[in-house]
Amino acid sequence: MSFSEPTAPRAGFVRFVGAGPGAEDLITVRGLNALRAAEVVVYDELANRALLRHCRAGTELLHVGKRAGCPGARQEEINWLLVAHARAGRQVLRLKGGDPTVFGRLGEELHALRSAGIEFEIVPGVTAACASAAAAGISLTQRGVASAAILATGHECAEKGAPALDWAALASLEATLCVYMGTRHLGLLAGRLIAQGRPADTPVLIVSHASLPSQVIRSGTLETAAELAADAAGAPSLIVIGALAASNPGLLALFRDSTVAADAR
Amino acid sequence: MSFSEPTAPRAGFVRFVGAGPGAEDLITVRGLNALRAAEVVVYDELANRALLRHCRAGTELLHVGKRAGCPGARQEEINWLLVAHARAGRQVLRLKGGDPTVFGRLGEELHALRSAGIEFEIVPGVTAACASAAAAGISLTQRGVASAAILATGHECAEKGAPALDWAALASLEATLCVYMGTRHLGLLAGRLIAQGRPADTPVLIVSHASLPSQVIRSGTLETAAELAADAAGAPSLIVIGALAASNPGLLALFRDSTVAADAR
Repeated sequence: MSFSEPTAPRAGFVRFVGAGPGAEDLITVRGLNALRAAEVVVYDELANRALLRHCRAGTELLHVGKRAGCPGARQEEINWLLVAHARAGRQVLRLKGGDPTVFGRLGEELHALRSAGIEFEIVPGVTAACASAAAAGISLTQRGVASAAILATGHECAEKGAPALDWAALASLEATLCVYMGTRHLGLLAGRLIAQGRPADTPVLIVSHASLPSQVIRSGTLETAAELAADAAGAPSLIVIGALAASNPGLLALFRDSTVAADAR
Repeated sequence: MSFSEPTAPRAGFVRFVGAGPGAEDLITVRGLNALRAAEVVVYDELANRALLRHCRAGTELLHVGKRAGCPGARQEEINWLLVAHARAGRQVLRLKGGDPTVFGRLGEELHALRSAGIEFEIVPGVTAACASAAAAGISLTQRGVASAAILATGHECAEKGAPALDWAALASLEATLCVYMGTRHLGLLAGRLIAQGRPADTPVLIVSHASLPSQVIRSGTLETAAELAADAAGAPSLIVIGALAASNPGLLALFRDSTVAADAR
């Protein structure tokens, strides 16, 4: 049983594909088919490299992993690569960890493509908040407990001047707070939430390497959040804060690593 | 090339699977493999029925579509079904539209399983907010424009008494607001946001039937939101509100409907 290959347009174009949280089989069927058809793949640090095995022979694989602290020029280089390869008439696949529309700096890349008159398509993926909640066996929303889920970034905490996020407003919402890239500043963030009125015993979960064999789930409260974060330092992690981020008995072996049949390639 | 089937445990259990936004090939590879292995499938109104073709012969297919306005007993019946079939030693697959952890009433079903001592697993999916943003060619977050994405439900608007969501807080956040199941109350919601200080010309997108051939994208502002919503009435829709919900030139034919090879079964 197989899905059809995407049809190749005549002009070069860029297809953004969400690789999902990490496990090879948490990409969408459409994303996997797009990988099989791509001529150039521009991939991030967070996308699972095992996925690249699905590319056909001769596909050009370009690693553009960004690390914290080196933005700017690096992003411009990625924009340039996408435009240049598409202008050369190629089917370019931009593989991003998680979902492309959530903290993936998609806006900058879309702007570059639009400015250059290059067509594109976005294939969505499983974002880290959903994958981490699944791994922990919790729901992100529940009637009467959390009417919303907020996807925020911990990077904002570190910037100079007024924080871009209004933590008083965040604290006042009956919502589950999902923080991307936040372990470095979790102590600061937890302090702000407590100062704004969130109870110190509000549950906190940190899911590191969600869906991978190296997955670790740490649980605590706003009060112990800084220790949890120190323990998780360095690992790509998603933080869940709120009443629903409580313990998770009854779980089956979750997120077993996918295996690929020996005849895979 | 094929991924391995999930190994069947000895006892009955329940696997929650996110079907994604609608298109058949926007389910994850893991979700598709799980469908192929399931003995009983309990599926929602919002999950694409075309996916059920991937089940093996003899799989029991149970439709438990919920419609607005009939909750309660209906949810208890679903809980009972999951528990009863798992207790009979079967591999039960609970197929939910989008991602199971986002407005999927997962909490109630998990509680029932935990109370009954039944093991489970959650396979995440592409949630409507991500799929709708992808369809519209926008990012949900962007440095300096929207530091967070808020996934909220429009149902809350309709309930008696104080709304569960603090709209003043929501309005104050520099965030993209994604409203699930909100077209019926969008006029009210837009009015509240304007009253709390959001500019009347804040962009609004309504994406109906995201990723399906029947997909329609309507764009306007908070001021014209009620008209857009009236136009979209009845269709499953996701509303995006915020500076990033602007127009989307430069799109390729997006979300082409997936086709399945003739030898599929």
